[in-house]
Amino acid sequence: MRGNLFVISAPSGTGKTSIIKRLMAQLPSLSFSVSHTTRKPRPGEKNGIDYHFISPALFKEWIDHGAFLEWATVYGNLYGTSFEEVEKKMDQGLDVILDIDTQGALQIKAKKDIAPEERGQFSPPVFVFIVPPSWDELHKRLSLRGTDPPETIVLRMAGAKNEVKSMAQYDYVIENRDLDEAVYMLKAIIAAARSRRRCSLSGKPLPFLDEVGFKG
Amino acid sequence: MRGNLFVISAPSGTGKTSIIKRLMAQLPSLSFSVSHTTRKPRPGEKNGIDYHFISPALFKEWIDHGAFLEWATVYGNLYGTSFEEVEKKMDQGLDVILDIDTQGALQIKAKKDIAPEERGQFSPPVFVFIVPPSWDELHKRLSLRGTDPPETIVLRMAGAKNEVKSMAQYDYVIENRDLDEAVYMLKAIIAAARSRRRCSLSGKPLPFLDEVGFKG
Repeated sequence: MRGNLFVISAPSGTGKTSIIKRLMAQLPSLSFSVSHTTRKPRPGEKNGIDYHFISPALFKEWIDHGAFLEWATVYGNLYGTSFEEVEKKMDQGLDVILDIDTQGALQIKAKKDIAPEERGQFSPPVFVFIVPPSWDELHKRLSLRGTDPPETIVLRMAGAKNEVKSMAQYDYVIENRDLDEAVYMLKAIIAAARSRRRCSLSGKPLPFLDEVGFKG
Repeated sequence: MRGNLFVISAPSGTGKTSIIKRLMAQLPSLSFSVSHTTRKPRPGEKNGIDYHFISPALFKEWIDHGAFLEWATVYGNLYGTSFEEVEKKMDQGLDVILDIDTQGALQIKAKKDIAPEERGQFSPPVFVFIVPPSWDELHKRLSLRGTDPPETIVLRMAGAKNEVKSMAQYDYVIENRDLDEAVYMLKAIIAAARSRRRCSLSGKPLPFLDEVGFKG
């Protein structure tokens, strides 16, 4: 069975990485998407594993051809997620996790609104937003992490409040009060997506009906 | 936390009742909705437990006031599910299961399209359709049950093929190949619904933000 795409965003410090890591250890059917970038590989980085390293010219050509689900410029380098990369894994039956910020997610959200039949086999992505229990708790977690100076924490808090404004565009909101509970909720969302009706409401035949022998 | 409403339909013989029974034994937060009816109680039936028994006059008054999520006439008696009955349980934090046919489900579906804020706290119901692996398998199960004469089985098969036409209106489709697997899928759907974003996309403030202390 074909996998699904999960677009997961969270303000930094919310615990998103811990939740995803824990879940990937539990679900062998989960996979990360490898991004394309125009930046040069750093020592130790492997092409096709850490990133797909491509030239700016090729990246721009791909943008023109609509090959990216989402892309962005960061410090002068281009980064993007290609349809091909994601669809390849979904075709293998893998559920693909895209761990991206709200700007990238909103680019994908715009594409989600295209009718499924126009996108061939591309099932609508599932959008998941993870929030901390409160602003105070987020501030505490960022401080306890000890990786950022106070002025960076101020910036991260402002960024978090800005990102949360996009929450209404997401399908699910998980509150990370407790790591185990948050992992369970994300697992349920991923499992439930496997049962989503795979068709449009336009009256076109349901592939599912064929698959299960419902020939009428 | 407020519960959700799950509208579950399946052609007879699909195993819906077994799936729901098994799941209700596992999840204490699951509850059945008690219907209202104008038919007279049968021996042993208790008011408020098996049905809410009310007069035809009162039932019709309630219809006029839009008090029913769905209602139908069966052999001259009226049967219906009241908003109040369902909302009361959801307010208690219970997830409510409505085990109804596709006609009743489509009545509720029509109400689902009302914007959430116009319905107050009424979160959109989740629609789940359960199918057998194939028509042959359904026929086999109906025959093995041994409760119906061949001519009734012919009618049930025709009814099933008719009901499946409404499948495109449902959010989820579970194929009941294996009882444990089907129970797991329904459980995931029920758990995932707890993380649904509880707001409209109209830009109105998210109650969730208040709940978790996100006062900005």
